[in-house]
Amino acid sequence: MAGAEWESLEQCLEKHIPPAELREVKRILYGKETRKLDLPSRAFEAASREDFELQGYAFEAAEEQLRRPRIVRVGLVQNRVPLPTDAPVAEQVAALHKRIEAIVEVAAVCGVNVICFQEVWTMPFAFCTREKLPWTEFAESAEDGPTTRFCQKLAKKHDVVVVSPILERDGEHGDVLWNTAVVISNSGAVLGKTRKNHIPRVGDFNESTYYMEGNLGHPVFQTPFGRIAVNICYGRHHPLNWLMYSINGAEIIFNPSATIGALSESLWPIEARNAAIANHCFTCAINRVGVEHYPNEFTSGDRKKAHCDFGYFYGSSYVAAPDGSRTPGLSRSRDGLLVAELNLNLCRQMNDVWNFKMTGRYEMYARELAEAVKPNYSPTVLKE
Amino acid sequence: MAGAEWESLEQCLEKHIPPAELREVKRILYGKETRKLDLPSRAFEAASREDFELQGYAFEAAEEQLRRPRIVRVGLVQNRVPLPTDAPVAEQVAALHKRIEAIVEVAAVCGVNVICFQEVWTMPFAFCTREKLPWTEFAESAEDGPTTRFCQKLAKKHDVVVVSPILERDGEHGDVLWNTAVVISNSGAVLGKTRKNHIPRVGDFNESTYYMEGNLGHPVFQTPFGRIAVNICYGRHHPLNWLMYSINGAEIIFNPSATIGALSESLWPIEARNAAIANHCFTCAINRVGVEHYPNEFTSGDRKKAHCDFGYFYGSSYVAAPDGSRTPGLSRSRDGLLVAELNLNLCRQMNDVWNFKMTGRYEMYARELAEAVKPNYSPTVLKE
Repeated sequence: MAGAEWESLEQCLEKHIPPAELREVKRILYGKETRKLDLPSRAFEAASREDFELQGYAFEAAEEQLRRPRIVRVGLVQNRVPLPTDAPVAEQVAALHKRIEAIVEVAAVCGVNVICFQEVWTMPFAFCTREKLPWTEFAESAEDGPTTRFCQKLAKKHDVVVVSPILERDGEHGDVLWNTAVVISNSGAVLGKTRKNHIPRVGDFNESTYYMEGNLGHPVFQTPFGRIAVNICYGRHHPLNWLMYSINGAEIIFNPSATIGALSESLWPIEARNAAIANHCFTCAINRVGVEHYPNEFTSGDRKKAHCDFGYFYGSSYVAAPDGSRTPGLSRSRDGLLVAELNLNLCRQMNDVWNFKMTGRYEMYARELAEAVKPNYSPTVLKE
Repeated sequence: MAGAEWESLEQCLEKHIPPAELREVKRILYGKETRKLDLPSRAFEAASREDFELQGYAFEAAEEQLRRPRIVRVGLVQNRVPLPTDAPVAEQVAALHKRIEAIVEVAAVCGVNVICFQEVWTMPFAFCTREKLPWTEFAESAEDGPTTRFCQKLAKKHDVVVVSPILERDGEHGDVLWNTAVVISNSGAVLGKTRKNHIPRVGDFNESTYYMEGNLGHPVFQTPFGRIAVNICYGRHHPLNWLMYSINGAEIIFNPSATIGALSESLWPIEARNAAIANHCFTCAINRVGVEHYPNEFTSGDRKKAHCDFGYFYGSSYVAAPDGSRTPGLSRSRDGLLVAELNLNLCRQMNDVWNFKMTGRYEMYARELAEAVKPNYSPTVLKE
């Protein structure tokens, strides 16, 4: 058992480690235990019928005297692309819309308030090819493209905030492409959009061929279910990106991603969780699953022969809490919906315990960074 | 089995999980496997005689054409205080000097080039008491206190760079206390000092009663064995602190700490490792072991009754590499020496793969942080 077939780390630990020790293992690896959510059986039936995994967990917080618990259910969706990558563009998009619609139905049954899909969820992650057509045809207007309209309908129907990461074409400003997440209120209105701030040049992730670093800063979205932000994919490697969303007030930061086993699987459990700890907020790490095969060969800058896929996306989507605890991951290979019930009061409670914002010395860092970016900057290096 | 008696996560996994699956578990939890170092048998004999754990691992890097491997051996020391906390101050310090001397002897046999001791290694972590005497008597001059002189002798004798974290009294500037690490060259000369930049106000960690945030910025020390920096204890929760050391050129960042099980054990494997990933450098996380009992009762701000200890330090010292891999942890309860062989070429290699500095957009963050610290700062919050 190895590669994409190996179901999940958590299943393996549960299977082999005796209960008394398993408790210690989980405490160290996952922090305070998350309670299993009691989700409706018809949700599990529907998930089984639609062939996707459904898991639910709750994070708890201490009772306060003056604030009531602020309970929010978030949904994280991971999925493979249902059609081959050489199917007509419109058919691929339609198949993904259909798949997501079915998953969102189940999320609604589970009482999800805010749902987030994976990075550029309406398309295969085709940037490995460096070809422009047909992939750029998947780009849409963030404000009124067919996918945004589709999500508006879902949002209104199910009273759910939708975070919809797409490939955006900005027709109003030079027709350029962006890697964007559209945030749609539960009323159906488009709340706004946010763009990927850091673009990878790593292995097959040739995204800088298609779009540039986001120009919208670090917006936060005020929803009836808390303040949310979206740190797209490679931005999770940049602690400052998480920090600015948090400084701007985000209580939940989604990290819709697309990343593969050989490259990043041992980094995956670390980065979003570290961000939850460091920023006193919840983070939701979402990765797609499956292997996507492309019609034409491409190379990967790894001295290996040309090939038509770039390995498997390992899923493993999870939620991390400001106290460092986390849910288990979804499957490494199956489509899935992770429902997590958050008590947002935990953010301020952890802030008051750990005080990272109070002790952060941001004035000093603003000054030091401003110096450090000067071409003639000379760091303090002590020598004998 | 629980609490401090449970030896280590890694031992438990090794014991219960079948080999084929263990490989996958370790890949996800620890990244690329570190090779066991072949240390001299007389080192193991001495460690056993002196009753401390000895482990050794090597991190490898790809071969390059123009640079030879840059191999460095670092030593991480974790230990309990040998004497009761009410023994005379001079005797406590002498006992710690003696203990460390024995461990450094073994490190030298193992070919260690740079060794780092735990936070304020010459004293119990007495800040929980909020009493001034006798604890402030443990403070010494960084430049020529008895502990610095002791370390200079060790450094010269064993041709080893010594990182010596102490409670510093700065007699030249108002007689104030600092939490400081003195860095001593393998020649025996004092290279300089660096101070703890972030001070906790968390539970029993009443350190702000004793000393303030460091005023030395983020110095890096050029040694014959690479550029090193020291991020002391609570600074590991602050991603910007790691970042500035890295921007200033650190290839190895030591994190001498003192932290307890109930508070932080599930955060421990995350933070220093995330820093190694995010900054393309090696990080060395060091924690003490044991329970320290104090003569007078104190409270912990946790609504519980007054008591004379604040729980067990859980050891688990480890090294993380820029590729996200890490060594197993030392024991959770025993004194120990972790020897890690690093190939510093891995730092630049990972930098060239992941490009976090190139894609970091520090100008933007310098600007955003400078805005964010203004009292009238108004973040971008999008509402319906």
